[in-house]
Amino acid sequence: MNNHLKTKLYTNTLRMPKPISGNKIFTNVPKDVWTMTADITAKAAANPKNQTREIISLGQGFFSYSPPQFLIAASEKAMNSNALNNQYAPTRGDLKLIDSLKRYYNQFYKKDLQNENILVTTGANEGILACLTGLLNPTDEVIVLEPFFDQYISNIQIPQGNIKYVTIHPPSNLSEGKHAGNDWKINYDELEAAITEKTKILIINTPHNPIGKVFTKEELIKIGDICYKHNVKIISDEVYEQLFFDDSLKFPRIATLDPKYAEITLTVGSFGKAFCATGYRVGYIISENAELLKYAAAAHTRICFSAPHPPQIACAESLDIATTNGYFENMRVEYNGKFQKLMKTFDQLGISYTIPQGTYFIIADFSKLKVPFESYEFPQEIAVKPKDFKLCYWLAVEMGIITIPTSEFFTKETIENDKEGIEYLLRFAVCKTDDYIDKACERLLKLKPYIA
Amino acid sequence: MNNHLKTKLYTNTLRMPKPISGNKIFTNVPKDVWTMTADITAKAAANPKNQTREIISLGQGFFSYSPPQFLIAASEKAMNSNALNNQYAPTRGDLKLIDSLKRYYNQFYKKDLQNENILVTTGANEGILACLTGLLNPTDEVIVLEPFFDQYISNIQIPQGNIKYVTIHPPSNLSEGKHAGNDWKINYDELEAAITEKTKILIINTPHNPIGKVFTKEELIKIGDICYKHNVKIISDEVYEQLFFDDSLKFPRIATLDPKYAEITLTVGSFGKAFCATGYRVGYIISENAELLKYAAAAHTRICFSAPHPPQIACAESLDIATTNGYFENMRVEYNGKFQKLMKTFDQLGISYTIPQGTYFIIADFSKLKVPFESYEFPQEIAVKPKDFKLCYWLAVEMGIITIPTSEFFTKETIENDKEGIEYLLRFAVCKTDDYIDKACERLLKLKPYIA
Repeated sequence: MNNHLKTKLYTNTLRMPKPISGNKIFTNVPKDVWTMTADITAKAAANPKNQTREIISLGQGFFSYSPPQFLIAASEKAMNSNALNNQYAPTRGDLKLIDSLKRYYNQFYKKDLQNENILVTTGANEGILACLTGLLNPTDEVIVLEPFFDQYISNIQIPQGNIKYVTIHPPSNLSEGKHAGNDWKINYDELEAAITEKTKILIINTPHNPIGKVFTKEELIKIGDICYKHNVKIISDEVYEQLFFDDSLKFPRIATLDPKYAEITLTVGSFGKAFCATGYRVGYIISENAELLKYAAAAHTRICFSAPHPPQIACAESLDIATTNGYFENMRVEYNGKFQKLMKTFDQLGISYTIPQGTYFIIADFSKLKVPFESYEFPQEIAVKPKDFKLCYWLAVEMGIITIPTSEFFTKETIENDKEGIEYLLRFAVCKTDDYIDKACERLLKLKPYIA
Repeated sequence: MNNHLKTKLYTNTLRMPKPISGNKIFTNVPKDVWTMTADITAKAAANPKNQTREIISLGQGFFSYSPPQFLIAASEKAMNSNALNNQYAPTRGDLKLIDSLKRYYNQFYKKDLQNENILVTTGANEGILACLTGLLNPTDEVIVLEPFFDQYISNIQIPQGNIKYVTIHPPSNLSEGKHAGNDWKINYDELEAAITEKTKILIINTPHNPIGKVFTKEELIKIGDICYKHNVKIISDEVYEQLFFDDSLKFPRIATLDPKYAEITLTVGSFGKAFCATGYRVGYIISENAELLKYAAAAHTRICFSAPHPPQIACAESLDIATTNGYFENMRVEYNGKFQKLMKTFDQLGISYTIPQGTYFIIADFSKLKVPFESYEFPQEIAVKPKDFKLCYWLAVEMGIITIPTSEFFTKETIENDKEGIEYLLRFAVCKTDDYIDKACERLLKLKPYIA
C-alpha cells in the first residue's frame, strides 16, 4: 500500500483519541539528564563554532572501544559450539558462569560459595531491580545515599517502595584544591535517624559513581553495624570493583568483612563494566545468604526470565582468562593513566576535583569558570535548572565539550538549599581511548582564559 | 583459605539469622509448573525402566537445535565490525533493527510506522512487563484470558495490578475426536461483564499457547470493539506469529484490523521464537499509538536500560534475509510436518486433541489413558494436584515421556469446579528435530495397551 493511500485510509476516521493514563511513576516526568545531555549535544553540534572541530564527549559512561578480543572470540565459540547455548539459559544462570564466578569470588568470601549463592542477571541494572522487586512491598522504605545513580530511584518506585535519602557530605571547600574520596562523609547519626520500622534496604555504591569514592573498611563496618542492628538488608552495587586504583584484592567488599554483613547483603557485579561490554547485558548478584538471594532470583525469573545466554558462556571463559593474563591489572593501569592526564589538565586550569579512587568518572568543580550566567542565552529548560546544567550547556555549545551535570545525582532539596555547595560539579567519563583523552585535555586547556 | 578453615571461621559466630520478609508476590509461592516438571524429569531419569532408554522431552518450549546460520554469522559480524555494537544500544533499540522492523511490519499496518512506533525489548517477556509496568497503577485491573501463560500473572502483580480472568471455553466434548481452535470460545458477555472502572488492559495471546488457537478476524473485531468502547488497552502477545500454519500474511493482527484498535494496542513480538534463538533475548513492541508506547519505553529504560546490542544488529540483518530467502515459509512447512506426525500418532492411539493453527504446542486429552490414579504411588506434591499432573508424572516415570500439565494455565477455581473438563489435558512442544519427533511418536505408540 502506498503511503498516500495509507494516510488517507487512516485519517478518514475522525475520532477523539482515547485518554491514556499511565503509571504515575512515568507520568509528567521531567526529561532525564541523559536525554537532556543528548539534546545539549545536538545543540552543540549545530553551533557553527563546532562544525570545524570534533565534539569531545566525556558525558555518558560509554566505552568508545571494543571489549577484549578474548571475550568476542569466546562469544563466537559459544554460539557455534553447542546448539543449546543459543537457547534460554537456566533462569539462575548458565552453570559454567556460576562456576567461574564461584572460583573468582571465593578468594574474597569467608564462606565457600555454592551455586545457590549466585544469580546471573540481565546486566547489573536488572539485577538491582530484581533485588528490590524481590524484597519490597508497597510503602517499604529504602535508604539511598546521595549523590545516587538515577536508575535506583525508579527501581525502588516500580515495586512501590519509598525512598529516604542520606547525604554523603562533600568537603566544605569543594571549589578549592584537591579532595580525596574520604573527604566525602556520611554522618552516621543521620543514617541511623533515617531508619524507621519500614526501612528494609540500604543501597550503597562503591566504587561510587559519580564521586569516584571507595568506601573504606571502617566506613563499611559502621554502615554494616547499623544495618545489621536494624535488620536492614544491603544492596552493595560494586559494578566498578575492577576499577579500584590501589589493589583490587584489597578493595573493601562489605559482604566479606563480617559474617553478620554477609547475611544481610546482596552484592551486585557487572561484566559490562569489567569487560567494557555494556551491550552484552550480563550482571550478577552474590549473597552468602541463599534465602535472601532466592527473592531476587524469583523476581529475576519474572522480570526477564533468563539473561542472554551466549554472552554468559563468553563471560565465564573470559573471567577465567582475565584472572591469569593480567587483564584487570592492565585495565587499572590504563585507567589510572587516563585519570592522571585529566587531573593534570585540571591542575593546569586551577580546577578543583575529587581524586577518583575507583570508577571511570571524575567530578570537578567549575565554579571558577566565568560563564555569563545572567547574560548568556540558555534555552528555557536549561535556564530553570541549577548552575551545573548551565555550565554543561555552555561547555558543550561554546567549547564542544560534553559533560554531565551532577545535580541530577542529588535530591531537589539538597540542590535548592545549596546546603552542600555542589552546584558547580561536572562529571567526566574517561572510558575512552588515550588519544581521545589527549584531545579532550587539549580542548579543556582552551578554557584557561575563562577561568577566574 | 581452605574450606575447612572457612567453615570454622564462619560457624564460630553463633547468631540467630535475621528474619527476611520479601515481596508478598514471591513469598510462599507454590513450586511453578516448570520447576515441578524439572523434578518430575529427574524422578523419571532415576527410574531403572528409563535407564536403558532416552527420556523423551516434549515439555518446555525449548528448541533442541541452533538458530539459522545467517543469524549466528550476523551476530559475529556485529561484534567484530564496530566497537560501538558491543556497547549499550539506544534504550529504544538499535536504529538498524528499528528500520528493519518498520520495513517488515509496514506490509501489515495501515499507518506508515515511524521510529516512535517501535520499542526493542530484552525478549518479549520483558516487553510485556514493560507495557504493564508502564501503564498500571496499583489496583488497576488487567483482563487475562485463561488458559494463560504464567509469566503474565507476576508481570501484572509486579506493578501491583489486579487480575480478572475470562475463560476461553473449551469444546464440551474435549475427550472425543478432534477439535479446532475455533471450538475454544470466548463468551463476549462474560468479557464485557469482567470490565470495571478499574480495567485498564486486556492481554490476548494469538497464536495461543497452549491451545494453538489463532483468533479469527471476527473474534478480534468483537474483542477490539469491546475494548475500544471501554478504553481498555490491548497487549497483543503475538510471539508465535511466524508459526501460523495457513499463510502468515493472512495472520489476523488485531492492531491492523481497524485504526480504533491500532490506537489502543501494543503488539508484542519475539526474535527468540522467530529465529529459534530464545537465548538471545530480543523482543519488540509495536504500536501505532506512539504516546501509548512511550509508557512502555519509559518502563523498559528503567527495567533493563537497553536490550543486548549485538543480537539486535544480527536480528536486523536476519529479518531482512528471512523475508527474501523463504526462511519463515520453510519453518512453517517444517512445523506443520512435526505436528502431522504427532497428530497421526494421537489418531492411532485414539487420543483427542485440538488441531494447532499456530505455535509449537499441541494439547491432547489423556482421559482415556488408564493411569491407576488411586493405587499408584505419587509423591505428595503430585498427589494434591489435578489429574493432569498425575498423568504427566506417570508418563514421565513409567514411559519416559515428559509433557506439561495444562491445569497450571488455568485458575484454581476453574480446575476445582472442573467446569470445563480440562483436567486431562497435556501440552506437547514440537520445537525439536524431526528425528526426535519420530522417536517421540514411537514412544507414544507404546501407550496403546494403556488406552481404554
